[in-house]
Amino acid sequence: MSIEAKLQELNLELPPPPPLGGVYKPIVIIGNLAFVSGHGPLKSDGHYITGRVGAELDLDEGYQAARQTGLALLATLQQQLGSLDRVKRIVKSLGWVNCTDDFLQHPQVINGYSELMRDVFGEENGVGSRSAIGTNVLPGNIAVEIEIAVEITD
Amino acid sequence: MSIEAKLQELNLELPPPPPLGGVYKPIVIIGNLAFVSGHGPLKSDGHYITGRVGAELDLDEGYQAARQTGLALLATLQQQLGSLDRVKRIVKSLGWVNCTDDFLQHPQVINGYSELMRDVFGEENGVGSRSAIGTNVLPGNIAVEIEIAVEITD
Amino acid sequence: MSIEAKLQELNLELPPPPPLGGVYKPIVIIGNLAFVSGHGPLKSDGHYITGRVGAELDLDEGYQAARQTGLALLATLQQQLGSLDRVKRIVKSLGWVNCTDDFLQHPQVINGYSELMRDVFGEENGVGSRSAIGTNVLPGNIAVEIEIAVEITD
Repeated sequence: MSIEAKLQELNLELPPPPPLGGVYKPIVIIGNLAFVSGHGPLKSDGHYITGRVGAELDLDEGYQAARQTGLALLATLQQQLGSLDRVKRIVKSLGWVNCTDDFLQHPQVINGYSELMRDVFGEENGVGSRSAIGTNVLPGNIAVEIEIAVEITD
Repeated sequence: MSIEAKLQELNLELPPPPPLGGVYKPIVIIGNLAFVSGHGPLKSDGHYITGRVGAELDLDEGYQAARQTGLALLATLQQQLGSLDRVKRIVKSLGWVNCTDDFLQHPQVINGYSELMRDVFGEENGVGSRSAIGTNVLPGNIAVEIEIAVEITD
Repeated sequence: MSIEAKLQELNLELPPPPPLGGVYKPIVIIGNLAFVSGHGPLKSDGHYITGRVGAELDLDEGYQAARQTGLALLATLQQQLGSLDRVKRIVKSLGWVNCTDDFLQHPQVINGYSELMRDVFGEENGVGSRSAIGTNVLPGNIAVEIEIAVEITD
């Protein structure tokens, strides 16, 4: 089954690929590695999920924001690679949670992204190495930011 | 001398490889590079060193937490690679210090990790490129988190 | 035109390559990738630009700090590679802004670095993938820290 068919089976709707928010490229490919720029939780209506987890957002809302960030990453990969079938596996992910100083469940938040990738690409290829980190603030007050490196095929 | 013998000579005790704290793999290998997920200061008793440097922990305690994080990274590398002799060199490290807004000595904290790696793998192979960063909070309130990329042999 | 000639044409003055602030190497090369350690805004007078953006520094001063960080990165690359002509392209950049909890324009700050690299290496090779992140504090209270990966030639 193609990944695009898998998205349909899972009833997943990708947002538009996020517009650039500065001087950078959405992805850069070197050899069989694609480095994807930091993405935020862009929704299909073109707005981002904003707020700090532990204050305006709770754990579940943070999880949903991480999941939405994953959908935005998929939208960029699809646009830049032509098809998500070119994604061989997720190699590395780094996820930041915009949160209060006393919020401690960053891995549970970033799981919203990681479980999406596992569901889309499978346990073997969709689960990579990962770091989950808190930070005091993110661009535009987005709730989550994630950058990834993926192995691709020609 | 094998790295495992070197550990004995240095009287280093590795903690158990940290259990997964979310949906990710401990390491992912692509070509001759192994990307290791973010690790915290897991002790041999199975507990993590927690607290913010500048508040509950001072510089030396932060240094010890970074060193313990290095031991946890070695435990994962040993388990995942079969032997630490497969580590050819440390390529890249990114270390976060959970700290107050006025704590400024992040490099001195992360040196606890870097000096361990230098002692284990030697000046040439044990010292890589590095960034040391402060952050307002880390998962479970661990004091330090470090992710690394290492070059490996077959 | 060589990159060094381009620097002259642009009237860019590189600071001295930053001295090491801990146990790490300025860059590590593996294959055709050079991983450059986190750099701060070192000025030609040997001092760093310090302060939190949103408090002691405003957006434009943060932008200038990011630009100065780019000049420090160029100084290191020039010293370590022998010539900046060996930089084939910027692959990946990760930039942190030392800022207050309510400062939201991290991409606009890091653009100070990114626009410098674009002007020096050109639109195609000087613009890579990127993440821009806020944090509560950086080493020595520097305003910006940036780590990069670049593709190099022999």
